[in-house]
Amino acid sequence: MRDTCNYKLYFITNNVHKVEEVKLVAREYSICIEQAAAPKIEIQSNDLEPIAINAAIKAYSSLRKPVLVEDAGLFIESLNGFPGPYSSYVFKTIGIKGVIKLLNGIQDRRAYFKSVVVIIAPPAFIIEEGIVYGVIASQPRGNKGFGFDPIFIPEGLKHTFAELSIVEKNMYSHRAIAVRKAFTRLRDILKI
Amino acid sequence: MRDTCNYKLYFITNNVHKVEEVKLVAREYSICIEQAAAPKIEIQSNDLEPIAINAAIKAYSSLRKPVLVEDAGLFIESLNGFPGPYSSYVFKTIGIKGVIKLLNGIQDRRAYFKSVVVIIAPPAFIIEEGIVYGVIASQPRGNKGFGFDPIFIPEGLKHTFAELSIVEKNMYSHRAIAVRKAFTRLRDILKI
Repeated sequence: MRDTCNYKLYFITNNVHKVEEVKLVAREYSICIEQAAAPKIEIQSNDLEPIAINAAIKAYSSLRKPVLVEDAGLFIESLNGFPGPYSSYVFKTIGIKGVIKLLNGIQDRRAYFKSVVVIIAPPAFIIEEGIVYGVIASQPRGNKGFGFDPIFIPEGLKHTFAELSIVEKNMYSHRAIAVRKAFTRLRDILKI
Repeated sequence: MRDTCNYKLYFITNNVHKVEEVKLVAREYSICIEQAAAPKIEIQSNDLEPIAINAAIKAYSSLRKPVLVEDAGLFIESLNGFPGPYSSYVFKTIGIKGVIKLLNGIQDRRAYFKSVVVIIAPPAFIIEEGIVYGVIASQPRGNKGFGFDPIFIPEGLKHTFAELSIVEKNMYSHRAIAVRKAFTRLRDILKI
């Protein structure tokens, strides 16, 4: 089945899981998503917002087509927000095992996932965020999703993100929340 | 006592400890170091070099005076190089306590500190690195230095970096090695 597109956005990312998740939300808005290979240059910052804005501006400058950039992180309360904006690097080095070790013996398991979405599609320049609160599981569970999904249990659920299908994850996730807000605004501004 | 300056470099950093260390090495070359407040914008990368080069170019563009940028990190072998380029962020979040916890029960304590120095002082554009190998101590010792100095024991020594004076640390440190190489090259190119 071919998607009906009212509008096309270039998603600057190397993460195919993110593309799948965002594509499914975009379909609700008749927006098509194409993964784009433009280099994503990220600055260092303790906040996601400047990272995403900067990356989007650079991508738009080189591509000159409507771009979507998304940056996300897992913020663990008892670790002062670690791994935060560096979640991907931390996942690749110490991994889930390392994060579980750091939380060993710590009662406070609270954490949240945050996503910042930036769309540059003149005349629209949209910045939206989504947050989902939850707790870090004692052991990883599930094999869906990516990154720290196997140890994140969203509030009100018993399952980790990695135990949910994409459709289910999109009902709760930080990324789906941010993307829905952004697409709603985009639709209003561009009348698509 | 006032320093005799053959040449003045603006060191782009907010870290006063780094300034003290570099100033002492610079004196050997009759180079003066002035800490500069130009914004240091760092990109995300698993390598220090692109981070330092990018930051130096941006600083030089805005300041238009000879600039020195230094970026460093602690790379722990058993943690796949973590915390690496994000050492400062990791120090501020999980801290020395977190790193010690991650290494709990791990036999392999090998680690190295790496420093990359970039000087832009047309016609000179210098990129040099310095590495010091060592091991991670089981507990922090000493109150000198900064960052992860209290848990790093350089090869051939019994003391951590935090137990050494600046003069002593400069005999072994990654930063002093990189800076000396860079100043030697600068002197050759600029005939100072």
